[in-house]
Amino acid sequence: MVSSFQVFGIKTGLLKPGDNFAEILIDEAKQAGGLLDGDIIVIAESALATAEGAVVRLKDVIPSKEALEYSKKYGIEERLAEVVIQESDSIVGGIPGFLLSMKNGTLLPNAGIDGSNAPPGAVVTLPKDPDKSARKIHDEILLKTGINTGIIVADSRTHAMRLGCSGVAIGCYGMTAVTDERGKTDLFGRELEVTQLAIADSIASAAELTMGEANECTPAAIVRGLSRYLSDESGIEGIEPSKCLFMGVAMKADLSFMKNQL
Amino acid sequence: MVSSFQVFGIKTGLLKPGDNFAEILIDEAKQAGGLLDGDIIVIAESALATAEGAVVRLKDVIPSKEALEYSKKYGIEERLAEVVIQESDSIVGGIPGFLLSMKNGTLLPNAGIDGSNAPPGAVVTLPKDPDKSARKIHDEILLKTGINTGIIVADSRTHAMRLGCSGVAIGCYGMTAVTDERGKTDLFGRELEVTQLAIADSIASAAELTMGEANECTPAAIVRGLSRYLSDESGIEGIEPSKCLFMGVAMKADLSFMKNQL
Repeated sequence: MVSSFQVFGIKTGLLKPGDNFAEILIDEAKQAGGLLDGDIIVIAESALATAEGAVVRLKDVIPSKEALEYSKKYGIEERLAEVVIQESDSIVGGIPGFLLSMKNGTLLPNAGIDGSNAPPGAVVTLPKDPDKSARKIHDEILLKTGINTGIIVADSRTHAMRLGCSGVAIGCYGMTAVTDERGKTDLFGRELEVTQLAIADSIASAAELTMGEANECTPAAIVRGLSRYLSDESGIEGIEPSKCLFMGVAMKADLSFMKNQL
Repeated sequence: MVSSFQVFGIKTGLLKPGDNFAEILIDEAKQAGGLLDGDIIVIAESALATAEGAVVRLKDVIPSKEALEYSKKYGIEERLAEVVIQESDSIVGGIPGFLLSMKNGTLLPNAGIDGSNAPPGAVVTLPKDPDKSARKIHDEILLKTGINTGIIVADSRTHAMRLGCSGVAIGCYGMTAVTDERGKTDLFGRELEVTQLAIADSIASAAELTMGEANECTPAAIVRGLSRYLSDESGIEGIEPSKCLFMGVAMKADLSFMKNQL
């Protein structure tokens, strides 16, 4: 039988702090004929963060001395600079309009803070704990409907040496994020060279094709037909910069660890 | 109406040099009910390269002095090292078992040479000109069936700061690879911050979920329902390392150009 799957963009009303995302999903999934066992639900991080109240009103922020310096140096609003500093593990540089942050093991412009789709005068930070949010939504859907799903929290990000953003999974629950095919064989019976597939990132990218960044109000997607990736696993595993092919080469790190990954 | 699309993995027999990929696709598309106008066809680069005869028999290769040195330093077979050197724009380093190449503006282990799924004693290099191959297949399908498609040639690659490989488009024809949403507004009427979406990369990632790297013999996928991305555009635009967020930061390059991209 042909292997196939389907992706449905799920439209909602405008989300606001305090909204129950699981209930909204159960309700709006009717657009895709209702949730089915084995569905994977992809949720845009900005919508999730909004519902979770990760909204900072800039007029409530008092900029630190550091924020004032960055503000001047990179032409970034000083209270926004302060929120970026607070949300970052560290600031590694800046460009006009943006600070470059290290956060949760990756490089992010403005610590992933979204000015787009935030209420006027406010910004939306990344969800505090996307894996935990994914689990909460999974469990609530299971409890209310008896339906078992996989949940991905997705962000749209720039990738090394590629033009344009595509999807990455920043949180997940109830499914395998990265498959490990070490030991599997190729068409001629030899061991595979590419062994780890970023399933959750690929599903996030697929979902993004129906979600959009603009004013479409489509903060989630249902991916149907990939239930083989559902499992009792959870979480997105990060890597060290020195263990990243791109950062590692540019940093001239020892990349011998990659032997077993490529 | 709900926005949705469907992805079908297309199984084939074992491909060999000289096979006509367009004819195979027309024939095997019957698994998805036959090709339809507006379908986007994703083709695995290794299968395309095999059909195009980009297969190098290692016993025909004479290693250079440079190849012998790399072979010793990184424990890589000396004739394979020679093919990697010939296929690379430059060699920027190595790790046990792999040389790290710059090729077509990106960093690739072993210049993208695939040992998996190549005939015994041989390796498959990247297709010579993936954009041209995409156009050839597009035109042949159009000529033989009257059906207009978008074509993507896809590879599975490692991404900065992510665990596992996901899809990237290394060639395309008849569709828009990267959308530019500059000027579009968000839910509150403000200009979007994320403006360029890597549509072709996201479609390649979606397709990869049905294709697999192992012995599944699924070297292509049909993506149905995204005909809005078909256009008279072609090609995948590359970027300079200094203009990449990850490489640029690690290289301490001036990233001010990103102002208009993020």
